[in-house]
Amino acid sequence: MFEKNMRYAFLLDAYGEVLDGHAKAIMTAYYEDDLSLAEIAEGEGISRQGVRHVIKKSEEQLDFLESKLRLAEHYSAIDEISLELSDISAKLIATSDASLLEYADRINNLLKKLKQ
Amino acid sequence: MFEKNMRYAFLLDAYGEVLDGHAKAIMTAYYEDDLSLAEIAEGEGISRQGVRHVIKKSEEQLDFLESKLRLAEHYSAIDEISLELSDISAKLIATSDASLLEYADRINNLLKKLKQ
Repeated sequence: MFEKNMRYAFLLDAYGEVLDGHAKAIMTAYYEDDLSLAEIAEGEGISRQGVRHVIKKSEEQLDFLESKLRLAEHYSAIDEISLELSDISAKLIATSDASLLEYADRINNLLKKLKQ
Repeated sequence: MFEKNMRYAFLLDAYGEVLDGHAKAIMTAYYEDDLSLAEIAEGEGISRQGVRHVIKKSEEQLDFLESKLRLAEHYSAIDEISLELSDISAKLIATSDASLLEYADRINNLLKKLKQ
């Protein structure tokens, strides 16, 4: 049984660029476009077994990178920090104290940078 | 002429964990501890040429990872964001408005998370 683990959708997002073009296309088809092994095999002109092999190897590569770099974890922390900053900015604006708007603006600019 | 490019000290910081143990030890000796090729060769029990080869290969690997993941760039942006948040927190505290201390505290907590 070949199981789809959605953890790899996140890892693909973080490290997909490191995979070679062929592996990235297959992983994207499988994890983002939700195609079946048979559909991917047909599209790539290889066997289902070949597709399975590329997915397995790519998953190992993504696991290795995450074990070393913890990027998926880092980006998830950045998401939480962004939410908290948005809330602080909104609360500063809600005080209706004009002198605080400058800080809310600066925080909003930082939020844009965090999302880049 | 074999030149030391300090850009690799930053990349080593971002991606060093991905290198194998031997390569990481040599790159750390060269870029962080500032040992000479001859000193590293003696310590590792290999030729200067061998050390040079490992450094060259490791630099290529770091360049590849940065071209794909842009982590060094990302961490440098995070450093700038942290400085700006520290400044906002300090200014909120300096207002002497007790109701703003809560926001400064929350920002300081986020700063700790950003540095993890």
